[in-house]
Amino acid sequence: MTGTSDAVALAAALDDETALTTFRALWADLDEIGVAPTGTRRYSWTAEDAALRAWFTAQAESRGMEVHTDANGNIRAWWGGRPADGDSGVVTGSHLDSVADGGKWDGPLGVLLGLLAVDVLAAAEASGDFRRERPLGVVNYMDEEGTRFGVACLGSKLMSGALDPATARALTDSDGVTLAEAMTAAGADPGAIGRDDGEIRRSGAQVEVHIEQGKQLVGLEAPVGVASAIWPHGRWEFVFTGLADHAGTARLQDRKDAALPFAATVLAARDIAADLDARATFGRFHVEPGGPNVVPAKVVALLDARAATEAAMLEMVDRIAASADDAGREHGVAVEVRKISSAPVVDFDAGLRELHGKLAAEAGEYLPEVPTQAGHDSGILAPVMPTSMLFVRSPHGISHSPLEDAADADVLAGLRALVRSLAVLVGEVDEVDEVDGASSED
Amino acid sequence: MTGTSDAVALAAALDDETALTTFRALWADLDEIGVAPTGTRRYSWTAEDAALRAWFTAQAESRGMEVHTDANGNIRAWWGGRPADGDSGVVTGSHLDSVADGGKWDGPLGVLLGLLAVDVLAAAEASGDFRRERPLGVVNYMDEEGTRFGVACLGSKLMSGALDPATARALTDSDGVTLAEAMTAAGADPGAIGRDDGEIRRSGAQVEVHIEQGKQLVGLEAPVGVASAIWPHGRWEFVFTGLADHAGTARLQDRKDAALPFAATVLAARDIAADLDARATFGRFHVEPGGPNVVPAKVVALLDARAATEAAMLEMVDRIAASADDAGREHGVAVEVRKISSAPVVDFDAGLRELHGKLAAEAGEYLPEVPTQAGHDSGILAPVMPTSMLFVRSPHGISHSPLEDAADADVLAGLRALVRSLAVLVGEVDEVDEVDGASSED
Repeated sequence: MTGTSDAVALAAALDDETALTTFRALWADLDEIGVAPTGTRRYSWTAEDAALRAWFTAQAESRGMEVHTDANGNIRAWWGGRPADGDSGVVTGSHLDSVADGGKWDGPLGVLLGLLAVDVLAAAEASGDFRRERPLGVVNYMDEEGTRFGVACLGSKLMSGALDPATARALTDSDGVTLAEAMTAAGADPGAIGRDDGEIRRSGAQVEVHIEQGKQLVGLEAPVGVASAIWPHGRWEFVFTGLADHAGTARLQDRKDAALPFAATVLAARDIAADLDARATFGRFHVEPGGPNVVPAKVVALLDARAATEAAMLEMVDRIAASADDAGREHGVAVEVRKISSAPVVDFDAGLRELHGKLAAEAGEYLPEVPTQAGHDSGILAPVMPTSMLFVRSPHGISHSPLEDAADADVLAGLRALVRSLAVLVGEVDEVDEVDGASSED
Repeated sequence: MTGTSDAVALAAALDDETALTTFRALWADLDEIGVAPTGTRRYSWTAEDAALRAWFTAQAESRGMEVHTDANGNIRAWWGGRPADGDSGVVTGSHLDSVADGGKWDGPLGVLLGLLAVDVLAAAEASGDFRRERPLGVVNYMDEEGTRFGVACLGSKLMSGALDPATARALTDSDGVTLAEAMTAAGADPGAIGRDDGEIRRSGAQVEVHIEQGKQLVGLEAPVGVASAIWPHGRWEFVFTGLADHAGTARLQDRKDAALPFAATVLAARDIAADLDARATFGRFHVEPGGPNVVPAKVVALLDARAATEAAMLEMVDRIAASADDAGREHGVAVEVRKISSAPVVDFDAGLRELHGKLAAEAGEYLPEVPTQAGHDSGILAPVMPTSMLFVRSPHGISHSPLEDAADADVLAGLRALVRSLAVLVGEVDEVDEVDGASSED
């Protein structure tokens, strides 16, 4: 591990124009893959996914990095070669998949800044200002969003053992295709998925850059922040079962319309979440049979629940479920509530957070710590390796939408925060000559 | 036209056991086609549709009837041969298609009783008790439910000119297949669809038997009723447009969640419909993008609206739309409301209704007139030919559901009401000998 002041100087000295030119060229490539007029559509084990992996591999190899895909579909490109079995490097990166009609920043920003960080450190090494002491990996995790199979962070959950391989293989997409079938069709071996202690050890520690999903940094007037913790969150399935009937002839009082208690529950969830300063969202739901002239027989809806503490989250879900029960009774509709998944609070690694803070202080930058309500691979992996996250400010705060955005200056601030952290974690920094007004310190 | 008392005697004399045995055999055949564990699934221009048409054709030909499929996909089987161009017969029948996961009675009952009526009249003719004076057609209309292409009564609307052929050809199913493509794939010519004055003239007049969709006859303790009128009805599309965002990180107060005003509108529609003693149903809706962790950006929902008068229906829709606007404003969500279709009140032919009533009175049966809130091919065709409907009591009143049902005695009462009406309309009845306690009158 190198001196922090040298790392700060190395990052300060990176050339903005070079970095932005490369950054834009990488974006231009990505914009060719899985982008619909309505937003980004990049789902696991599809043709778009294969194109993204091929592009990532080509970019890594053009930098002389050694590319390795693990059994769970996560790809790591190692600068300095893949660590031998039992050895550790350091990894950065994120994911290239997206939600349906998502934005371009959620995921790709971390992968692109990982490649740019390798460019900066490799150039510093070539000029004798830096010496790499262990491999640096840039990682692209498989299926972080869970768009296709309904389970987020599929690649990191399998790798860390948080998800049972047999359960994962049986997951189905909206066409009824299982994960096992999708992997086989893509030329991967579903029989090999599962906890991978070798890749956990090789990864060593992880620093992930991500676009902020929210407006905390806007409010704090900070271009970059450090994640303190991830709120506990979970998904619950609500099934409202009424009775199909004719939309014309069935008298209102004779109906068992499943849409009515569902609608009441959507509104109640909003009020209850507001009351607890938490988050409740019904983002996916469908009606059966769905005939335009048929009273709804069934509505199946997925509740996404998050709160600052697990107790608050569970209290919220209990209250929403009780409200659904009441509305169901009123309309003669049966209500079933089932937990699909839940994740406890995640506190990111104290040592890494302290390092990010110390480097920012030395650079004279404001780097606030902020919590997040979003799940991430770095949260899934926190129990098995030290992980941290750097958030880049998002001007509108909008996420999972084509309106995601970031200013060039904030991207560069994020790159500097990443480069100086990685410089400390993977190498030895020599004194850097003053460039463009950046001062060398020690 | 024959004497009404002879017609009553002919119908009274029909053998219950023979009719029920044939009826059950026909049901057994139909139960083999397009029946899922969750209900009946028979959609236009599919393999199931072709199987139903083949079955109907075989049944008709076994009775010596001449089968003709018109350009719009409606099939008529003529007892006594298809009328020459310019001549008129009389038709009965209904449709064999279904809603998604529907019941077995809605549609098929009318087709089956049409075939049974031919059996009874042909037997009476063979025994010299009846003389057919014009052809009797049994019709199976194409796509009455509108399940596949979203427009109900497709076959009769095209035939009567109520639906523009070019508009019809461009209709799409949920897979994006157009009606034109579906017809071509099924071996039919979409270029030939449209108003068909020849078939309207040939049909002459129509008496359709249908399972009641509702509980009016249960309340009146009548096995059979005559339709007085069809309530005006229509469909309106409600589009709620908010903004996709992250279900975890987006603060509640920053969201534009399209599901919230949609839910408020579902509940408001119920209250407004109850207030006007009308019917409002959101039976089909979907959310976009539909990610489990994405705030709903859009909800598209179809309102089915019906009321005793057109003024009441329009007042109801206006009030629901105003309520949607209010809820949209509250949540920062844009609301658009668009009329998809509407149909005015339909009064069935006074002459046919009077005939049914007179025959029932002569038979000593109670045959009340009841309105209906459901659309039917006979309603669509009412402007171009005399039409009437006979409803058979449905014990639970449930419709568009596998719970549809009818008692044997009520089916037989429906068959008698149909047979005596057709006997008057298509032929000359000779005096019938008393059979099983039925008395001949004149």
